[in-house]
Amino acid sequence: MKIDPSTLSRKEAYKLLIGSVVPRPIAWVSTTNEMGVHNIAPFSFFTVVSTNPAMLAFNIGPNKREDGSEEKDTLANIKETKQFVINLVTMPNANAMHESSLPYSPETNEFEKAGLTAISGERVKAPRVKESPINMECELDQIIELNDDRLVIGKLVYFHVDDEYYMANGRIDIEKLQVVGRLAGNYALIENLFDLPQ
Amino acid sequence: MKIDPSTLSRKEAYKLLIGSVVPRPIAWVSTTNEMGVHNIAPFSFFTVVSTNPAMLAFNIGPNKREDGSEEKDTLANIKETKQFVINLVTMPNANAMHESSLPYSPETNEFEKAGLTAISGERVKAPRVKESPINMECELDQIIELNDDRLVIGKLVYFHVDDEYYMANGRIDIEKLQVVGRLAGNYALIENLFDLPQ
Repeated sequence: MKIDPSTLSRKEAYKLLIGSVVPRPIAWVSTTNEMGVHNIAPFSFFTVVSTNPAMLAFNIGPNKREDGSEEKDTLANIKETKQFVINLVTMPNANAMHESSLPYSPETNEFEKAGLTAISGERVKAPRVKESPINMECELDQIIELNDDRLVIGKLVYFHVDDEYYMANGRIDIEKLQVVGRLAGNYALIENLFDLPQ
Repeated sequence: MKIDPSTLSRKEAYKLLIGSVVPRPIAWVSTTNEMGVHNIAPFSFFTVVSTNPAMLAFNIGPNKREDGSEEKDTLANIKETKQFVINLVTMPNANAMHESSLPYSPETNEFEKAGLTAISGERVKAPRVKESPINMECELDQIIELNDDRLVIGKLVYFHVDDEYYMANGRIDIEKLQVVGRLAGNYALIENLFDLPQ
């Protein structure tokens, strides 16, 4: 099967990409606006972009909400406050993550909607998710415009990991974490780890 | 456990990031230089950055090779030819992918080293991996410099998927593909897919 992407609609290209760039890590991004209303939403076009200093990037697509707002709350909040927190999604909070992916108005506190507890960041005003075992506090570095998409690049300024999952020498116990990865419309639990070569 | 990333070395920050941004898709990137020497290497800081047009990005860190060359062959080749192919890594070619991650001199044909078959691209001169079920031909859009790291952004110009894994309406059979995801030093086979909410 050969496909010329220039013949595809945005929706068709999206479907092909989410089925091919797999498995994807989930950036569960929490932000706040200047009124103090918290927002949280998952994004699975997410990657490390630098290790010295540590920097992370995730992609925000155009708004699907039809209430006239021009951009997603996450993007509006990050532009306003220059800060965000990336939380890791694990099995115990998979349903809450899914709930937080549904579109609500900017006035809605999505932590409450999803039954999550917002706790203070150490270096940023954006809230952290108490129920998530890893929180990465970030300060905005830059936003790169790629047509309708926005690539948000942040510098990691503070890192939290539950003691239960922190091993010696900066290693994280991934197997114990029960991490959730994103595929096309569905998800996978990360287990059955192996080494190479086999 | 709380960590201030500004106190970490590059190596320590890297270890923390690869243990936290999981699971990662693997961009198995094939390129060629102007002499026609093929190169292939895996990169797991990889994401979709745009869907209209379809665009992909992956991160290339500084060279670990101590032969005096200033940048990795993949980066040098992309700068030279403005083209590359991203191939998907599945279980049957996991060992070859691992083999292709080892550092060789620029003159080495890594397809031969890894026992892979280079086949022609439809739109680019960079070779595709015959043994991989998905090949994404890309043209360079831009390279973003983030300190020592380079974020290579490419536009998808042609897409190949083995008929065996292509379902109706642009859907890919991820379960059948036996995709390999990257974790910290190890890997995971993507299986046990599920839907949300549960």
